[in-house]
Amino acid sequence: MTTAKAKAAGHTPKNQKASFGDGEEGHSRAGVPVYYKLYVLLAQKIRDGELGPGEPLPSESEMTAEYGVSRVTVRKALNQLEKENLVIRRRGARSCVAPREEEPSPPLIRGPIDNLLTRGLAAQAQNLETGWKVPTLHAIEALRLQPNTECFRVVRLRLHDDAPFSYSRVYVAPKTAKPLADIPLGNDPVLVHLERAGFRASCADQSISATLAHDPAASALGVPLGSALIQLRRTVYDADGEPCIYQVSLYRPDKYEYFMRLSRESATMRPQWRHT
Amino acid sequence: MTTAKAKAAGHTPKNQKASFGDGEEGHSRAGVPVYYKLYVLLAQKIRDGELGPGEPLPSESEMTAEYGVSRVTVRKALNQLEKENLVIRRRGARSCVAPREEEPSPPLIRGPIDNLLTRGLAAQAQNLETGWKVPTLHAIEALRLQPNTECFRVVRLRLHDDAPFSYSRVYVAPKTAKPLADIPLGNDPVLVHLERAGFRASCADQSISATLAHDPAASALGVPLGSALIQLRRTVYDADGEPCIYQVSLYRPDKYEYFMRLSRESATMRPQWRHT
Repeated sequence: MTTAKAKAAGHTPKNQKASFGDGEEGHSRAGVPVYYKLYVLLAQKIRDGELGPGEPLPSESEMTAEYGVSRVTVRKALNQLEKENLVIRRRGARSCVAPREEEPSPPLIRGPIDNLLTRGLAAQAQNLETGWKVPTLHAIEALRLQPNTECFRVVRLRLHDDAPFSYSRVYVAPKTAKPLADIPLGNDPVLVHLERAGFRASCADQSISATLAHDPAASALGVPLGSALIQLRRTVYDADGEPCIYQVSLYRPDKYEYFMRLSRESATMRPQWRHT
Repeated sequence: MTTAKAKAAGHTPKNQKASFGDGEEGHSRAGVPVYYKLYVLLAQKIRDGELGPGEPLPSESEMTAEYGVSRVTVRKALNQLEKENLVIRRRGARSCVAPREEEPSPPLIRGPIDNLLTRGLAAQAQNLETGWKVPTLHAIEALRLQPNTECFRVVRLRLHDDAPFSYSRVYVAPKTAKPLADIPLGNDPVLVHLERAGFRASCADQSISATLAHDPAASALGVPLGSALIQLRRTVYDADGEPCIYQVSLYRPDKYEYFMRLSRESATMRPQWRHT
């Protein structure tokens, strides 16, 4: 039985302790300080609404018992939470979850953000880099190119109210990219520039995932390394079904989410969700 | 000018150093060890394909210079990468990126995973908890309930090939939940049980985001605290447009991604992406 299987089979939410690492050995695989584990755990519970505004946190001694950590560790974690205005500490009393700040602004758009951009409702762009470049292996595969083929690459930061929320790398296959070389890109999506020059897109494959922030995206987006980011990958196909554009976009989850409406198609015996 | 604005305005990917914290002060807000910063950064670059298989990493002295860290720190980061089979270390020579392991298995499904489940192609479920419970504030708001109203809550782990990939909490409003109390849930989605009992869903609002793993989801999914997870939130509406079900699902990004196909609607002057 593999570890994953063993874990899954034996799991109940109460009989297993949190760990940053290999669990079984009881120490942190990545060497992250224990207080930071506790801080991440509590901060996420608050942000996800599992500990509500005004609710008391467990007492220091409850936490030392529950997590098997020292009182110093608990206090360091609470300091960090207080610094981020997530909890309110009171001498001699239990800390409690801070009142909620204003609701985060609603998502900018339903679905693909470039729809919004196309309609001119968009955030401004900073074009950080443009030019010919050998792309990543993922891009080479998505565009079905020979290894070491140069593509036209655009690295962009999107801002809303002067705050960055999206970092994208767009790779355009050589046969499609020619019109881009001499155009000032401004705020318009790369695809819109290509369409103005006669390119016809038919469809795109898109997947949405999550990743940890690393540089240079972390710096550009103004988030700490190791933060959660939404990762969207898209391959755009031309009228002949050939892949022409591959892009990877990273979004700050506090500024953007991929919102969509589903309709329930219940005509059949087995109703299904459908994107609208 | 706020820090975010200053950062955005002054940014180029080359003139700013990575940081886990407030950047400007040059120290880590969360107290994460420096070697871990470097490890996260390098591991993500490798996973995202920016450093390709077989490619040499910068030399130890290049890294000490580039990241302003000691040689000991660089070595600790490399040890960690080697332990995870991401790099190959060679005495006296540069470390290089390990050959790629087999491609991660393709995403299980296009779009909502419960479509797959409905068609019986699904992963098995472990029903970790079921019963009446006062839900989180987010759920109360989504379901437009009075504070402290109990909902029927189902906490589920989904497994594929015996390995967990999804952790969900489903909250059903009291007026809708009655049929659930006495049904063994098995593998079927909660909505399918309700539909069998006569409930009619009309549509759902869904948003996809990213979050950091915390307990009990982290333990259940077998991932370290602080890992990136895909977060999907959905509110299901009945035939009268009343919200009845609210769910939050967390997915391991190495096991699942939200895949969809877009078509390009170019009939108008301003072509748009459309979900298909």
